[in-house]
Amino acid sequence: MKKVAVIMGSDSDLPVVEKAITTLKEFEVPCEVHVFSAHRTPAEVRAFTEKARRNGFGVLIAAAGKAAHLAGAIAAATTLPVIGIPVKSSTLDGLDALLATVQMPGGIPVATVAIDGAQNAALLAIQMLAIEDKKLAAKLDAQRQEAAAKVLAKDKDIAARYN
Amino acid sequence: MKKVAVIMGSDSDLPVVEKAITTLKEFEVPCEVHVFSAHRTPAEVRAFTEKARRNGFGVLIAAAGKAAHLAGAIAAATTLPVIGIPVKSSTLDGLDALLATVQMPGGIPVATVAIDGAQNAALLAIQMLAIEDKKLAAKLDAQRQEAAAKVLAKDKDIAARYN
Amino acid sequence: MKKVAVIMGSDSDLPVVEKAITTLKEFEVPCEVHVFSAHRTPAEVRAFTEKARRNGFGVLIAAAGKAAHLAGAIAAATTLPVIGIPVKSSTLDGLDALLATVQMPGGIPVATVAIDGAQNAALLAIQMLAIEDKKLAAKLDAQRQEAAAKVLAKDKDIAARYN
Amino acid sequence: MKKVAVIMGSDSDLPVVEKAITTLKEFEVPCEVHVFSAHRTPAEVRAFTEKARRNGFGVLIAAAGKAAHLAGAIAAATTLPVIGIPVKSSTLDGLDALLATVQMPGGIPVATVAIDGAQNAALLAIQMLAIEDKKLAAKLDAQRQEAAAKVLAKDKDIAARYN
Amino acid sequence: MKKVAVIMGSDSDLPVVEKAITTLKEFEVPCEVHVFSAHRTPAEVRAFTEKARRNGFGVLIAAAGKAAHLAGAIAAATTLPVIGIPVKSSTLDGLDALLATVQMPGGIPVATVAIDGAQNAALLAIQMLAIEDKKLAAKLDAQRQEAAAKVLAKDKDIAARYN
Amino acid sequence: MKKVAVIMGSDSDLPVVEKAITTLKEFEVPCEVHVFSAHRTPAEVRAFTEKARRNGFGVLIAAAGKAAHLAGAIAAATTLPVIGIPVKSSTLDGLDALLATVQMPGGIPVATVAIDGAQNAALLAIQMLAIEDKKLAAKLDAQRQEAAAKVLAKDKDIAARYN
Amino acid sequence: MKKVAVIMGSDSDLPVVEKAITTLKEFEVPCEVHVFSAHRTPAEVRAFTEKARRNGFGVLIAAAGKAAHLAGAIAAATTLPVIGIPVKSSTLDGLDALLATVQMPGGIPVATVAIDGAQNAALLAIQMLAIEDKKLAAKLDAQRQEAAAKVLAKDKDIAARYN
Amino acid sequence: MKKVAVIMGSDSDLPVVEKAITTLKEFEVPCEVHVFSAHRTPAEVRAFTEKARRNGFGVLIAAAGKAAHLAGAIAAATTLPVIGIPVKSSTLDGLDALLATVQMPGGIPVATVAIDGAQNAALLAIQMLAIEDKKLAAKLDAQRQEAAAKVLAKDKDIAARYN
Repeated sequence: MKKVAVIMGSDSDLPVVEKAITTLKEFEVPCEVHVFSAHRTPAEVRAFTEKARRNGFGVLIAAAGKAAHLAGAIAAATTLPVIGIPVKSSTLDGLDALLATVQMPGGIPVATVAIDGAQNAALLAIQMLAIEDKKLAAKLDAQRQEAAAKVLAKDKDIAARYN
Repeated sequence: MKKVAVIMGSDSDLPVVEKAITTLKEFEVPCEVHVFSAHRTPAEVRAFTEKARRNGFGVLIAAAGKAAHLAGAIAAATTLPVIGIPVKSSTLDGLDALLATVQMPGGIPVATVAIDGAQNAALLAIQMLAIEDKKLAAKLDAQRQEAAAKVLAKDKDIAARYN
Repeated sequence: MKKVAVIMGSDSDLPVVEKAITTLKEFEVPCEVHVFSAHRTPAEVRAFTEKARRNGFGVLIAAAGKAAHLAGAIAAATTLPVIGIPVKSSTLDGLDALLATVQMPGGIPVATVAIDGAQNAALLAIQMLAIEDKKLAAKLDAQRQEAAAKVLAKDKDIAARYN
Repeated sequence: MKKVAVIMGSDSDLPVVEKAITTLKEFEVPCEVHVFSAHRTPAEVRAFTEKARRNGFGVLIAAAGKAAHLAGAIAAATTLPVIGIPVKSSTLDGLDALLATVQMPGGIPVATVAIDGAQNAALLAIQMLAIEDKKLAAKLDAQRQEAAAKVLAKDKDIAARYN
Repeated sequence: MKKVAVIMGSDSDLPVVEKAITTLKEFEVPCEVHVFSAHRTPAEVRAFTEKARRNGFGVLIAAAGKAAHLAGAIAAATTLPVIGIPVKSSTLDGLDALLATVQMPGGIPVATVAIDGAQNAALLAIQMLAIEDKKLAAKLDAQRQEAAAKVLAKDKDIAARYN
Repeated sequence: MKKVAVIMGSDSDLPVVEKAITTLKEFEVPCEVHVFSAHRTPAEVRAFTEKARRNGFGVLIAAAGKAAHLAGAIAAATTLPVIGIPVKSSTLDGLDALLATVQMPGGIPVATVAIDGAQNAALLAIQMLAIEDKKLAAKLDAQRQEAAAKVLAKDKDIAARYN
Repeated sequence: MKKVAVIMGSDSDLPVVEKAITTLKEFEVPCEVHVFSAHRTPAEVRAFTEKARRNGFGVLIAAAGKAAHLAGAIAAATTLPVIGIPVKSSTLDGLDALLATVQMPGGIPVATVAIDGAQNAALLAIQMLAIEDKKLAAKLDAQRQEAAAKVLAKDKDIAARYN
Repeated sequence: MKKVAVIMGSDSDLPVVEKAITTLKEFEVPCEVHVFSAHRTPAEVRAFTEKARRNGFGVLIAAAGKAAHLAGAIAAATTLPVIGIPVKSSTLDGLDALLATVQMPGGIPVATVAIDGAQNAALLAIQMLAIEDKKLAAKLDAQRQEAAAKVLAKDKDIAARYN
């Protein structure tokens, strides 16, 4: 199976990003985790990204805050799909990271998920890999059903309490 | 090859969406275009989406404006990757569509591109299909090089004019 | 009397939503509380909503955060009036939920109240039921007068302290 | 049948508001149209509103721009349901009117629709009247089906053109 | 001397408003403090405001949060100058109150100060009264010089510490 | 009678500011119009402002766009009341000018009106002068009644057309 | 004298950027103009930037719109000062470009000017070069005085017309 | 070597500003720290700034919150480069300070860094001084490499933990 890379711009993003790693592991999708900064270690970003397809990666996930350039910088160095997680920082409530991640110019897309939306970033990566992988698609369907079941259980609880 | 669906919430979104269709055709990726409304024809949205994987689709693109629920409604009915294009309407400069598309809750990702970013939606879909398709990946690389060449040509022009 | 449904997208919305339930009970308006997710249990949303009028409901209240599609999804499946409560989540201070709830396209209205405005959602539902119910209207008038009396009492307190 | 009042804060709001009037007439719901300003003719706002229930009104619609107080001022003078239409003006793209209309304090709800959303304001009023009026509810269902049919027709057109 | 009224929309605004009261007392400007709600006690707002000029008031200060209509409602009922203090509440960081206070339509001005800017509201009221009152103007000048002296003292401290 | 100064940061603000001048002339309030820039001619801003009280001014109005510092710079140099008009420029729809004008620090108030709200700036200045001037107050009341009459006339027109 | 580079992300930015070029030429500061895209021609961005100091550049100006990464990408590849011009594009009124340019993480500053503020970008570059160049500083002073003289002349005109 | 001035509008900005002072000291760049308020001590701002070039300053850094005029007021009184640090205060999450600092009118640039971005302000000042100072440029390069090394070390740690 193709691997997924999970790259964060700073180790301070780890508490947000961890959810992506856990989710990938739950689906037994092989992943590799890195701290690469678009601005402090741009050479490492490029070196890793340019070889990513050759090295067996199928999707790259990038998480960054503020003027979040990481996902865009990665997307500029590969034609693999790149998923961007805008990370909320101490000012502007994540709006800066969201706009800096999603408003990419024509030609270089970044698949952006919600601010701090690390779980969805992982699920989206898995969905991409599952396009051609029926087993993985079945796992996704199963997980979707579990999630629905949990909501239904909570509905029962709350309905019992209030109705 | 898996097909890509391009679904718009209203035919008034067509001028924006057209760029996605053109781009898919340039890459010779089979696509199907539809007008389905999350609110006016929700049954059609579901019917189409629930059978999408079986019907040979690999990626679904959804474009909508204002309280843009279309991509999310589609994402709720499939585990195929869903790409959302927030469409700018007459008020709020596209911010409403962007937030309504990208801020999805955990479990149901939508791969969001820039406001009115139809070309990138198509390229992102192609990148997803190209994970397991070397020919398509090569085409993406070629197109990337062409785009770079155009920028270089413009640099030459402008450098000649001003330097 | 027609019933009011109070539906939340996640049980994490309960602390906000509780105020709506309490208010409905104060007015002795029969209500039913549910957890249904627009994205995780869309079939339950539809099943409940499509039968709501037949099942004796007069108004449906829906609370959700982030890309809050719940009220819109419900509104698409009924012509009963639907009230949306945008719920503030961990990023963007509720603006995302507000825009995703209120900016509905033509044809499918959602009666939106303030961010986290659960009390007003209940009062609005009661006002709708009171259009044809004089007793209920009288209760609303009485409650309005009580609320005014409380403000007047506070005015007296503060005037006594400062003037 | 109860009447609907359509009140605008300034005659410059008429181009937006007209859609509400047309929609009410299409549904043969009796309506009365007024220009009352929360700030320039507050006495008229009150006089009209305080007698509204007695005078046979069931729902009041108020449209205003900028620091849009009209719907709130009306809501303060009645316990009838009040629908607010935030109107976009020359600055801030309607955000000021939206927040000034929707962010009402506890106790005094305003059912807010989208910026410039006059058609939905009328439909919402009709939905409220239809809670106890089966014929009106049937008309709403019929119109919903017509709207769906139009989307389906456009889907056919566009599918024919592109697929 | 003319009096200043300090009116808050809810007693929960008192912690913000207190600074205005203190400042007026420091300048020995007579003031009267009230809790009047634009929406819950509109009759009291009007009754107080319509008699304000006759009752010896020169300036009215109004503090309110969310869809802050209080200052505008007061301004509609008098031609005395009205100062609005937008109060930050639990969502949207005060932006809603700011826009609802400052974006008044032509004809009915509200002199708006910063979000939670109660001290400045009081100083502005005193400045208005000081237009025709040399002693009060002299006090304002003296206070301005004191404030400057404090900054200079802090500059000395910090310069001593760092330079 | 005390004079009112109308100061704009650039002659490009004149189309907005003109309404303030006209309004002051309608009320026969003496005014003086200037173009002074907080950044390009700060010495003139100070020279004019520091002598303003002595030179018979009662209120100073300042209009500026973008990072609108003019009103604040004037307010720093006088204890006369200063009214700020935020002027919309080519980007950000006036939000920058609004925040730069209204969010003044404690000690130095600016009485801010709506974006491009020049008429209200003039009316506010007149209200300030009218605190101690009964004739002027009477004129304000008369104008308020005229404005109300115009709304009532428009109400009649529209009611006649639609009711 | 050190040179200034003016780099734009796309030739569509030229109408905005031209003002920077003109200003540099007025001050006889040698400049070089380029079209380099952070995403389409990242190698050229790096190649140019890494040699910039050696090649006699003192300051680099970068203009880009949307998720404007160009200035940040350049700043990551040099320790020369980098000035960023956020360019307004078809959505969001320039806010996206502003936040993506200015909200840089610690360690990699970008000196950001106003949205579309190309003239100021050039002046800022000249100010940097003038730190150690008295002639250039004298030219800046002279230009400042000219700009002030223009404002004074306009003040005279308008004062003559209105006073 | 030319000196850098670090000026804050209020001593409450010190916790943010301290990082700039520390950074300048690390690079052994002589600096002078002051508390000057654009509004409370404008004369000191001017006196200091007008003599700054003569007194051996090369760059001026100004930090202020809310309607942050300090950097602009300083920039109006010198042609030295001025760096603005927008400081987040209790409302609006720093957006007011950012817009009031960066949106300067043509002719008077302020080199704006991120909200609370004091370290970058210092680094930018050092970059400006390093244009003509090879030793300082070498120090900047060395610090950049250290920063990169830290990121690489963290990458190792995290890669070891997760891969």
